[in-house]
Amino acid sequence: MKLLVINPNTTTSMTQAIDGVARRNARPETRVITVQPDNGPTSIQGYLDIARSLDGILNIAEQHNDADATVVACFDDTGLDALRCIMDGPVIGIGEASFHAASMIACRFSVVTTLSRSIVGITENLEKYGLAARCSGVRAAEVPVLTLQSDPDAARSRIEIEIESALKNDGAEAIVLGCSGMSRLTDSLSAQFGVPVIDGISSAVVMAEALVSIGLKTSKIGAYAS
Amino acid sequence: MKLLVINPNTTTSMTQAIDGVARRNARPETRVITVQPDNGPTSIQGYLDIARSLDGILNIAEQHNDADATVVACFDDTGLDALRCIMDGPVIGIGEASFHAASMIACRFSVVTTLSRSIVGITENLEKYGLAARCSGVRAAEVPVLTLQSDPDAARSRIEIEIESALKNDGAEAIVLGCSGMSRLTDSLSAQFGVPVIDGISSAVVMAEALVSIGLKTSKIGAYAS
Amino acid sequence: MKLLVINPNTTTSMTQAIDGVARRNARPETRVITVQPDNGPTSIQGYLDIARSLDGILNIAEQHNDADATVVACFDDTGLDALRCIMDGPVIGIGEASFHAASMIACRFSVVTTLSRSIVGITENLEKYGLAARCSGVRAAEVPVLTLQSDPDAARSRIEIEIESALKNDGAEAIVLGCSGMSRLTDSLSAQFGVPVIDGISSAVVMAEALVSIGLKTSKIGAYAS
Amino acid sequence: MKLLVINPNTTTSMTQAIDGVARRNARPETRVITVQPDNGPTSIQGYLDIARSLDGILNIAEQHNDADATVVACFDDTGLDALRCIMDGPVIGIGEASFHAASMIACRFSVVTTLSRSIVGITENLEKYGLAARCSGVRAAEVPVLTLQSDPDAARSRIEIEIESALKNDGAEAIVLGCSGMSRLTDSLSAQFGVPVIDGISSAVVMAEALVSIGLKTSKIGAYAS
Amino acid sequence: MKLLVINPNTTTSMTQAIDGVARRNARPETRVITVQPDNGPTSIQGYLDIARSLDGILNIAEQHNDADATVVACFDDTGLDALRCIMDGPVIGIGEASFHAASMIACRFSVVTTLSRSIVGITENLEKYGLAARCSGVRAAEVPVLTLQSDPDAARSRIEIEIESALKNDGAEAIVLGCSGMSRLTDSLSAQFGVPVIDGISSAVVMAEALVSIGLKTSKIGAYAS
Amino acid sequence: MKLLVINPNTTTSMTQAIDGVARRNARPETRVITVQPDNGPTSIQGYLDIARSLDGILNIAEQHNDADATVVACFDDTGLDALRCIMDGPVIGIGEASFHAASMIACRFSVVTTLSRSIVGITENLEKYGLAARCSGVRAAEVPVLTLQSDPDAARSRIEIEIESALKNDGAEAIVLGCSGMSRLTDSLSAQFGVPVIDGISSAVVMAEALVSIGLKTSKIGAYAS
Repeated sequence: MKLLVINPNTTTSMTQAIDGVARRNARPETRVITVQPDNGPTSIQGYLDIARSLDGILNIAEQHNDADATVVACFDDTGLDALRCIMDGPVIGIGEASFHAASMIACRFSVVTTLSRSIVGITENLEKYGLAARCSGVRAAEVPVLTLQSDPDAARSRIEIEIESALKNDGAEAIVLGCSGMSRLTDSLSAQFGVPVIDGISSAVVMAEALVSIGLKTSKIGAYAS
Repeated sequence: MKLLVINPNTTTSMTQAIDGVARRNARPETRVITVQPDNGPTSIQGYLDIARSLDGILNIAEQHNDADATVVACFDDTGLDALRCIMDGPVIGIGEASFHAASMIACRFSVVTTLSRSIVGITENLEKYGLAARCSGVRAAEVPVLTLQSDPDAARSRIEIEIESALKNDGAEAIVLGCSGMSRLTDSLSAQFGVPVIDGISSAVVMAEALVSIGLKTSKIGAYAS
Repeated sequence: MKLLVINPNTTTSMTQAIDGVARRNARPETRVITVQPDNGPTSIQGYLDIARSLDGILNIAEQHNDADATVVACFDDTGLDALRCIMDGPVIGIGEASFHAASMIACRFSVVTTLSRSIVGITENLEKYGLAARCSGVRAAEVPVLTLQSDPDAARSRIEIEIESALKNDGAEAIVLGCSGMSRLTDSLSAQFGVPVIDGISSAVVMAEALVSIGLKTSKIGAYAS
Repeated sequence: MKLLVINPNTTTSMTQAIDGVARRNARPETRVITVQPDNGPTSIQGYLDIARSLDGILNIAEQHNDADATVVACFDDTGLDALRCIMDGPVIGIGEASFHAASMIACRFSVVTTLSRSIVGITENLEKYGLAARCSGVRAAEVPVLTLQSDPDAARSRIEIEIESALKNDGAEAIVLGCSGMSRLTDSLSAQFGVPVIDGISSAVVMAEALVSIGLKTSKIGAYAS
Repeated sequence: MKLLVINPNTTTSMTQAIDGVARRNARPETRVITVQPDNGPTSIQGYLDIARSLDGILNIAEQHNDADATVVACFDDTGLDALRCIMDGPVIGIGEASFHAASMIACRFSVVTTLSRSIVGITENLEKYGLAARCSGVRAAEVPVLTLQSDPDAARSRIEIEIESALKNDGAEAIVLGCSGMSRLTDSLSAQFGVPVIDGISSAVVMAEALVSIGLKTSKIGAYAS
Repeated sequence: MKLLVINPNTTTSMTQAIDGVARRNARPETRVITVQPDNGPTSIQGYLDIARSLDGILNIAEQHNDADATVVACFDDTGLDALRCIMDGPVIGIGEASFHAASMIACRFSVVTTLSRSIVGITENLEKYGLAARCSGVRAAEVPVLTLQSDPDAARSRIEIEIESALKNDGAEAIVLGCSGMSRLTDSLSAQFGVPVIDGISSAVVMAEALVSIGLKTSKIGAYAS
């Protein structure tokens, strides 16, 4: 199968990092194609970036309309509904995928994201998907996306503080990392805290493969009609 | 990986049918072991059957505690929470799995189950998992589980009536088949109605494989502590 | 005050019609400027049209960033959150405004919109704004936007059927017309059925004037930070 | 238009203060008539005061049944539903109006009211109106209504503490002042904290004018039938 | 114990009928005192009647402040919150009591009330109490309260139609009779339909006795502080 | 009447303690029979214990199918739905009963239970029953069930801390004790904190008597059909 992975922003280093995570988690027989829009915001933080990125996302996706499935590699699931209108195969957002995965291995999960301005958008997605019922909290480490790369130690220590607090105060039993840039921390944070830590990119890749393998495609008779 | 599939009732023909569906949808490298309890109800219809089946389910699961993942092959996800307390790997119910799958390929899905007495239990599960937000209706075809095998034509025509009504009146964009005994109808109903029709067994099998492949296990620090 | 009214589609006749409704309902001292994007979809029906229209909407809005308030004249409140990030004054969607207005004059209101594919999006907005609690139903007259102009008699009779049903079956006490193209029917439908019928354009215009007159502006410290 | 403003309590100094705020925010052509009941509680704090004030409120309103719109100037929207049964024009509560206004300029707002015993009532109203979805918290400054006038400095400093906490801990992006007696603090608190601070009296006055200007009246076919 | 039963309207024949039902269901040692206000509406139908009845209800209750418990014998639980502020013992509404009783003997119950204008108020109470989760529908037989006495056969046949529909279409497993005037139909309707039919007066009487017998009183530290 | 009280665990001293509380609160004419399963867990803490106890609970109940009512004396209402399928009379859980009782005497109540791993289960029950709307928090004293007996002073002081916090931080107006083992603390904690403290056993006993006295039985037409 051909799996299209879309990094909705235009930062090539992030596209490469996403591509690495996707390839490491995909099945050998899956052909991963990771792309980024020709133009648009360099990172997606808030409603304005989302709106400004959609045209580029849809344009690049249309060039790959033979994909068997598509992953949107931004935690706010940028353009998810619109992409479902133009692609034949399933389209999975990494936020969505990690909420579904978390819901199947824990009674309650908390999300640790980058900036507090993203909390409302994530909360709205959780409500829309329905999975708010399982979410014990959405927390911001107050680490801008780019700092995840420029000052990884400081970033990690801010993230650890929020995980600790989620486990202690929210009743969280698992942690969802709320930014594709946090992927590489998944395993060590899981080991450190002794709880499942969930990364969106890998969750979305394996969910996409799973749905394709049983022949499911996006419904085209209602809100996603093309 | 070793995938334990539990048919919670004691009807061997149903265990065999479930095994067939599971094997057809599993990856080649997945070792599927389908089991049934030594004793308990011959079918699971309502709260009493659920309660009476739990001891047997837990006993048989304990004999396979080396499984990498477990699927509960009854649409009411019998014993799901208790199994998560005793198994190391992910435990996925077929009701749960089909709700998650449906949520990723359609804005709204309806469930078509066997008897109206099961509607409340399914609705309670949807609320508990959170996925009620995406569900446009739970309908009963008023077909007892065993009739699915003894009089398949009559059963199918009752199911078709409810699917038609779900698409027309509920705003459903996809259909979840609410009983493991309906699995073999999936493809032809999907072709007939032109919408995704979702089978729980295959959904649960591929979800279980997906979670195992990225190393996720049930959290053991909270409600699922062993 | 300068009131910017944005028709999110590129159909000039609709922009003119919107402008007419806005001017008739604005205070004499309000300067109404009605605009449309330079490019984008000719009508907004569903997630794809919304996504494809956002760039144009934001571009035209930026040229009028001295507006004291902005109205988005499409019932799905296209681009509302993103516009709030770039404009100083309040930004009001016509869907949103009509839900708020209806909530203050009736215990329960139903929405009558154009096509059933819009129902999910409107329902999601109602949930997001919170006003779902007061909404007794969202109904589609199955009239495409353009038919409202090309065959007004057939369109009106379809709309009447849904209003009748909403009053009889939903328990609706007021009707919200779910498309800017239905504005001119407002008064005669209200007279015909003896209930308040609410038009989004006029509601949004007077709400925008109201908020400006007491000095309220969009908060810039959280999700709408620029 | 004639705008009836009802102070539900019998404290004349509060009626005068409310009248001042209403006049300052009404359009020049609006004729503001502010009244108070002939008898009833001197302030409205809790369920008993509400119940004891209703007869007086309805009596005074009936003497002004030629009003084009009515504002109920108590934050718990005392008698709102009953008044809608006897008045022809729109009836707007100041609690309600400020929730609607806040919802259009901020993703999340918190309410700062006088005493904690009022929190449940305000929360019930938010649920009933639906706007709980946008509310990030209801906080009490533990300042009795009368202290707002007798010891304004102490009162203000208590209110400031809760605003600070709402912005920091609730994720609030705007503040609703939950008592008509706090009106005169609106502008300076907004300047001090750099966020919209919303006063109910002025919000209700301009909402009432807005609804009247587009011809909307309370529906009389259902729960508000006279 | 002294049990005060308040008929919130001023129709003596209804007070007598209520008294009869209360006495038949109370324990022998319970002293039932049934009262009505000195003035107020002759029946309670809608928000205006509720508001106009409160002063009379509170006045008559104050004359019996030595009651060990109080029952409000109108299905909309008129004045419940205010009465809790002035009475020491528990105060139970008949609407509330029947929702609680129904929730303990059925998964889903439907309410059959008199007029459709009461539906919103009952629905709001169900939401406020939380018991909406168990309610499968609120239906109106379109029988005015007084017709229950003047034309009992026509009234009963209208009620039967709604019960039938609730059992068939709502998934109701029990029926709550939504008006104190329907009490005498309880037993025969239960026999006729083979499901529990719940009367509010008797439910409230035995709930009040139950709470008193274990020493529970209304909390006075929060919203019900006197 | 014969009242069957089931202690779902196999610890005889707890059965005896439960029996004592039930007898002290039952009417003189009520015949209380307190039983425990022949085998199963010695205490019920979490999903696994619940599942493992059901067979024994159902077996012992079947031996007493002439009971007029049944009380399940474990705060998680173990086996409640299944018991309703086999017993004729009402079946009441002590968790359920205390939530209903608390809802009638306080606007908001908090639950103080033993271990934090029980919080999710209690919360799920509150959602399922609907009474979450009235619950201001579920708190764990982190006291294992057996410690309640082995080190009562330490247990009580941990419980006091949580009650204090519930009253101060949750807005609780009443406290529900979330474990049958806490029953004997009810009166002294109520006196100490000046708020209603609610014990499940006594609440369930008097609710069961109340329902029986007005002839209500579990509905057998839907989810509880035998």
